[in-house]
Amino acid sequence: TKEDFDLAAIYVSDAQYNRNIYFDTSPEAVRLYLRYNHWLPQVLLYFFILLDLSLAVFEDPAVIPLPSWATMLVELLCLLVFTIRIVHYAKVIPREKFWKDAKNICIIVIIVLTLVDMIIYGSLKASDYDGVRWSRVLRPLLLVNVTEGRQLSHVSQVSHLSHPSQLSHLSQVSHPSQLSHVSHLSHPSQLSHISHLDTFTDLRRAFRSIRNALPQIFYVFLLFMFSLLIFSLMALKLIGKRGLTTINGSPYFTNYLEIIFDLYVLVTTANSPDIMMPAYNASYFFAIFFILYILINNYIFMSVFLAVVYNNYKYHLKEEVRQLVRAKRHKMVRAFAVLQDQREGREPAVNQANWNQLVRLVQPDAATLTESCWSKVAFVQLADLLNIEVITLKSRPHPLQSLCPNLYQSAPSRLLCKLVQHRAFVIVYDLIILVNAVFIGLDEKNTLIANSEWAFLSLYLLEILLKLYVFEPRAFFSKHSFWNWFDTIIVISALIATIVNSSMTSAGIYTNRQILDIILILRVLRLIRVVDSIKRFRTIINTLIRIGPAILTFGQLILVVYYVFAMVGMELFKNKVKFYGNSSDPAKAYCGNVLLKGTDFAQLNYCKNNFNNVVSSFILLVELTVVNQWHDILPLNASHRNIFVAFVLEAFFVEY
Amino acid sequence: TKEDFDLAAIYVSDAQYNRNIYFDTSPEAVRLYLRYNHWLPQVLLYFFILLDLSLAVFEDPAVIPLPSWATMLVELLCLLVFTIRIVHYAKVIPREKFWKDAKNICIIVIIVLTLVDMIIYGSLKASDYDGVRWSRVLRPLLLVNVTEGRQLSHVSQVSHLSHPSQLSHLSQVSHPSQLSHVSHLSHPSQLSHISHLDTFTDLRRAFRSIRNALPQIFYVFLLFMFSLLIFSLMALKLIGKRGLTTINGSPYFTNYLEIIFDLYVLVTTANSPDIMMPAYNASYFFAIFFILYILINNYIFMSVFLAVVYNNYKYHLKEEVRQLVRAKRHKMVRAFAVLQDQREGREPAVNQANWNQLVRLVQPDAATLTESCWSKVAFVQLADLLNIEVITLKSRPHPLQSLCPNLYQSAPSRLLCKLVQHRAFVIVYDLIILVNAVFIGLDEKNTLIANSEWAFLSLYLLEILLKLYVFEPRAFFSKHSFWNWFDTIIVISALIATIVNSSMTSAGIYTNRQILDIILILRVLRLIRVVDSIKRFRTIINTLIRIGPAILTFGQLILVVYYVFAMVGMELFKNKVKFYGNSSDPAKAYCGNVLLKGTDFAQLNYCKNNFNNVVSSFILLVELTVVNQWHDILPLNASHRNIFVAFVLEAFFVEY
Ligand code: NA
Repeated sequence: TKEDFDLAAIYVSDAQYNRNIYFDTSPEAVRLYLRYNHWLPQVLLYFFILLDLSLAVFEDPAVIPLPSWATMLVELLCLLVFTIRIVHYAKVIPREKFWKDAKNICIIVIIVLTLVDMIIYGSLKASDYDGVRWSRVLRPLLLVNVTEGRQLSHVSQVSHLSHPSQLSHLSQVSHPSQLSHVSHLSHPSQLSHISHLDTFTDLRRAFRSIRNALPQIFYVFLLFMFSLLIFSLMALKLIGKRGLTTINGSPYFTNYLEIIFDLYVLVTTANSPDIMMPAYNASYFFAIFFILYILINNYIFMSVFLAVVYNNYKYHLKEEVRQLVRAKRHKMVRAFAVLQDQREGREPAVNQANWNQLVRLVQPDAATLTESCWSKVAFVQLADLLNIEVITLKSRPHPLQSLCPNLYQSAPSRLLCKLVQHRAFVIVYDLIILVNAVFIGLDEKNTLIANSEWAFLSLYLLEILLKLYVFEPRAFFSKHSFWNWFDTIIVISALIATIVNSSMTSAGIYTNRQILDIILILRVLRLIRVVDSIKRFRTIINTLIRIGPAILTFGQLILVVYYVFAMVGMELFKNKVKFYGNSSDPAKAYCGNVLLKGTDFAQLNYCKNNFNNVVSSFILLVELTVVNQWHDILPLNASHRNIFVAFVLEAFFVEY
Repeated sequence: TKEDFDLAAIYVSDAQYNRNIYFDTSPEAVRLYLRYNHWLPQVLLYFFILLDLSLAVFEDPAVIPLPSWATMLVELLCLLVFTIRIVHYAKVIPREKFWKDAKNICIIVIIVLTLVDMIIYGSLKASDYDGVRWSRVLRPLLLVNVTEGRQLSHVSQVSHLSHPSQLSHLSQVSHPSQLSHVSHLSHPSQLSHISHLDTFTDLRRAFRSIRNALPQIFYVFLLFMFSLLIFSLMALKLIGKRGLTTINGSPYFTNYLEIIFDLYVLVTTANSPDIMMPAYNASYFFAIFFILYILINNYIFMSVFLAVVYNNYKYHLKEEVRQLVRAKRHKMVRAFAVLQDQREGREPAVNQANWNQLVRLVQPDAATLTESCWSKVAFVQLADLLNIEVITLKSRPHPLQSLCPNLYQSAPSRLLCKLVQHRAFVIVYDLIILVNAVFIGLDEKNTLIANSEWAFLSLYLLEILLKLYVFEPRAFFSKHSFWNWFDTIIVISALIATIVNSSMTSAGIYTNRQILDIILILRVLRLIRVVDSIKRFRTIINTLIRIGPAILTFGQLILVVYYVFAMVGMELFKNKVKFYGNSSDPAKAYCGNVLLKGTDFAQLNYCKNNFNNVVSSFILLVELTVVNQWHDILPLNASHRNIFVAFVLEAFFVEY
């Protein structure tokens, strides 16, 4: 029946994309589940989460101030979308499963708390009190809990089309048993590494894996603290008794807590060598103390931290991969059970007609597979088979071949194809790029150089068109052809921007600085392409592209953490440190805060490092993460002895 | 014959210690080879290498100046020892093998060059010219080439004796086929990891593995440089045109080379956020440029560097391990061939008498193995079998058991043994250590606290004696019982130092500050023991102890590099920057170099960071390695734009 096929198709597609939802199998629920998995609501959901997160730009303290009723209206809309999505989900899966999942409860609690916060804030605002939008801290948790995503990204990377020889000897895939053979033929080096390159792209799993590593990290941290205390005790007893002074004349290493703090900062090497100099000036032997300290606490402990985190991550990743493979097989077995022919005395199997209908449902453009019936073992491999789309795309003939075969197969056309696929073609374009680089470096006010831009643009455009003539367009723009996409987007954007700019100039309109900037960035980005021509570089870059999804997940994770810190930081520190730009206000010299008068922070003109809006806050948090000169950035006095738990304590020191 | 046994014993012992020397098999050469492998000449060789290296302390520029005839006499002695060693080696192995090995030629060249340098220096000195002892740079190469060392350190770590339960169910090893079973029984978690924990302890192999990784590292470096150039070009075009100024009012990002240098320093985060602030103050968007730059060049490239180095290291390590295992089997097969009984119609085998004689020759204190004859397969395992000495040691009865069995087996004695092995014993001593820590923290001028030291010392001594009563002393002090050795050495040293100090005090002699310092360090070090009582900590520390040999090899490698840099640095920069201590010389304010007047370097009192002797040089090199504030340490002007190839260029800028 139609319903059986729908159900089987869902099982196969869940297995294919590693979805793990225990949906109801009633026809009603199956129909809802199909709609739930549609790409449109998923993209919409992602959009509304980003919209909800980006509200921080418009809320007080704002980058672009909007009235609070406007932002709250948008937030209500977002909450409505989230509610619809969770209600939809609740209808798809069995009731008891829904309430057992902490994820769902978390989403509901966030929605309710946000509503409560908005009501309180609104009524406070109406009665002219200042409220705090504390529920904003909860927003990134939606990103963690709502987004479903593929839980693992299998690597099926195929190097891009400038080297088509790798894929040329591939014929149509005709049977799953050929799968291992085919993939071995096409890109053995890449497919053989699949098990090593599986990476989390699911944010929740990434968080879970970090949480699981926490106890072990905690013990390493305790050991580190123990080492810090022991070294500080030794410093107090050995150096503190010598009556040494720092460069300011204050006593050196006489207070145990100050020593602990100074040595803690020394781990980040931020106060080195200053913290060592007084002792070193007194005796060579004290240098050994500091070198030992840095060796043990910076090098060894940081390595152990890394090793513990990485080991745990790998262990949990393996565990999750094992679970996913099990779940995948389980789903394919269920799909098989729905479609199998039960004939007496024979093994159950799926016949050709059923198979074809199923494949058409799951992936309409997949290669057709010719086999009279499918055993259970062969059937279970279907999900993996459907994922090697690239290979089937590659083997298609060029559309011009079908449209005008005579012309496309003519001698000049075939010569052109040979030329474009020749190594010299790549070398010529690399030389063009190098010349272009020199022209970019030269002064652009020279008219010759300004006009040369048109020549370069046409050359790049010609390259893309030639490649499209030679290679099958759908294969050229396949999902994994990073450099083809890169080239095309950069060149087309540059073309549009250059045309807009020159038409504005010739029309006598004032040249927009931002358009010029964009043209310039695009011009410089085009130079990167040269990297792909050198084989060793390509290997490195391909590796980076392959771990891209994992880096993106890590980026989301960082975003969640930064967002929470930014929200808290803005409530605590907004307008404590002010940036005056080009104004001549005398308060500019101390960032508008008398407590900062004469500090390094104000003298080095760091005033824009503040929590006055969400953009500043994010940039400040990046600086704090990247740089270890905390004592320079955090607006504390020069002795910088109190940054230990920097964000929490700062609130007390500067103002409260 | 006797010679056959000697030869077989040498093969077995070479296999056991992973020696890889293709010696002559003539009786003469075998006898010389036995002497060559004796521990005494090896230790002597190491001593003379260290003596040769340490001459830098006494040579100009010296920490402790000695006349140059004295240091040169010692150096001649060292060269004589090295020559004797290499001649001895040449007599052991076939002549053609000797001249084929680059190592030997390297040693000979170093010896000859050093002699030539000494003659030139001596004659220049005699005719009152200033010479440069350039051959000092070659000294560390002797450390790399002369020392033989075990090439791989197999992990046969056994956790120390406070937890004897792990080993208690071990009986005598009776047959090599039991080996895998026995080792599995005793410490499965540790032995199962052997293949992962093999580490280089041979300096030459470490260097070779780094050299093999160089081409790959070079390509990553090229890619990094490319990225740096592209980012700099973008910065020049985007930011340079805005007419911005730095905090000093100088133009900002207008010179391409300066931008490259500034962005290069930014990778080390040393000039962050200063380098970003002018652009950031102009627009938020420029912050994105800098954040992207740091993300790509600091995080991603540094990770790729690490990954490439580590992958290469692992690959070459695996290769070397495979070679060593092959060589080991080969040697054992040769030993078997020497000793086997050739009987017709039977498999060749080694009989019991020959076996016992061989084992007695190779390792006199090994456990006796009872088996009538040894097949080739069993024989080949002998080398591994001999390495599990710890297990055989453990199973011995306590000497008191043999001396006075009645007393040792009496009820009170057995109660005592039970008590000491009880968990409470460990807890009580942990509490004692904690109380001791508090007492150390308190003021030591209080007499009660000063006298409490005697109580603590006796308690610790008592602990060691009790453990020696309960556990077999040779097992207690086995090679791998790190904490037992640690405890005993610390407590005995503290006892001696305290007795010396108090006898000096009571005799009215002036209390030596250095003895007090030593006592104090020993006291604080004792506290570390508490770490071993917590299981999670013990795991971490044991892991660190296990990778100890690899860290030591890395340390030697660093020593070699530092030594070369120190020698070159001292010749180029000696006395360019002077440290005045407590003198009131006005030159103190600018480290005795007018070029440093008013620089950060002088103002921060960094004058002792110089190349004026070998100790200063080493400390400075450590600082440069550890800290990324190069621009603070290197005595250049504040704009610090020329440190790129710091050591070489500095010579030109400051003086030449
Ligand atoms: Na730093």
